[in-house]
Amino acid sequence: MRSRDTAVAALKIDLHELTPPADHFFGQCAALHLTFFEQLSHAASNAPQVADKDALARVSGVMLERYEALVARIDHHKLDRTATIQPHLAGAAEFERRTMGADWHEQVAAAHVTIGFLTDFWVNLAAGLDRDDRAAVEQALRAENIEPTLHAIVERVIAANPRLSSRLAVWCRRLVGDTLLQARSALVMHDDNAHDEAQIDPVMTELIGEHTRRMDRLGLTA
Amino acid sequence: MRSRDTAVAALKIDLHELTPPADHFFGQCAALHLTFFEQLSHAASNAPQVADKDALARVSGVMLERYEALVARIDHHKLDRTATIQPHLAGAAEFERRTMGADWHEQVAAAHVTIGFLTDFWVNLAAGLDRDDRAAVEQALRAENIEPTLHAIVERVIAANPRLSSRLAVWCRRLVGDTLLQARSALVMHDDNAHDEAQIDPVMTELIGEHTRRMDRLGLTA
Repeated sequence: MRSRDTAVAALKIDLHELTPPADHFFGQCAALHLTFFEQLSHAASNAPQVADKDALARVSGVMLERYEALVARIDHHKLDRTATIQPHLAGAAEFERRTMGADWHEQVAAAHVTIGFLTDFWVNLAAGLDRDDRAAVEQALRAENIEPTLHAIVERVIAANPRLSSRLAVWCRRLVGDTLLQARSALVMHDDNAHDEAQIDPVMTELIGEHTRRMDRLGLTA
Repeated sequence: MRSRDTAVAALKIDLHELTPPADHFFGQCAALHLTFFEQLSHAASNAPQVADKDALARVSGVMLERYEALVARIDHHKLDRTATIQPHLAGAAEFERRTMGADWHEQVAAAHVTIGFLTDFWVNLAAGLDRDDRAAVEQALRAENIEPTLHAIVERVIAANPRLSSRLAVWCRRLVGDTLLQARSALVMHDDNAHDEAQIDPVMTELIGEHTRRMDRLGLTA
């Protein structure tokens, strides 16, 4: 299995021309991580087995740590936390609502797919921040790789109930649209739309490629 | 304001004759802390303001740390995590369901009241464990005092909407019954019921006294 981190680190292109200013970046990224925390703690609540409950609670704890690291950066810039994060809460909540899933299986698959995608995206987007901010984002979002844990749970879910495969495959494919929109909502677009799209396209293509590999590792058709 | 820790540390009596064996103790206490984590992360989800969302997410992170410390003790005793915790999940979930609250205000008040009460109770109950286990429980459950954070949120909620006072007072009074039952469900009772009750009564009286002081500090009638 090719390491995700390696795959993304190998990305030769980034979105630095479209990176929002630090206040917008950290506000939206922090709001999104609150959402990830909620999504995973919700999945932990609904997990029928202790082992999955335990694993999901711990992963949601990692999201909380990432959130705290992002908030520390907001503090570092002497920005007001509420003014910086609040404007992004509604968009994050709407994304959470659209990707919530009808049952626990879909919730776990959604968390795996959307958090994986958006983590790669935000690390890429950090390329346009100044050096210290960029390093802080990379450190926070790469500190603990949660993908093996989520992968293992989804894999076990499918193994225990192979008939779920096709439903989860369709569900995860459906998530890509909302996840792409959520990612694009962070970008600062310019008047030269064609130029912007030329920056965005190859990055999104690579992130979707990584999504496909994530699905392949689960034996799901992307 | 009298410190809660001092009040409880001053308890001259404890439940050591009724303390369950370590596997039961840590299994039930860990299951309960998963529930506290879920209760608080749920309240974080529902919080309308960033500041409260932030505070509740962090407090739920503290519950997760306590849970992890309790699980570490299960590991230390070379007990199987699932076999130790799973039997207590249904009871904890039922308690969570009964004390969930109809809206965010009730959720936050319930978390403050029930977690405060049960934390005191479990620290007291740890008196019957061996020295290392007892020290581990005290360290885990007293590591970060979450009460000021929860108190401040409930106080702010009431200040912003004074008409909530009477509803929250009734709600918190109603919680005491379920919380007492949850506490009692951990005790190992003996044939001599009168003797057991003579042990239990003064401890519960003191815990209810502490509950009353917690309510007083909020200006609520207990």
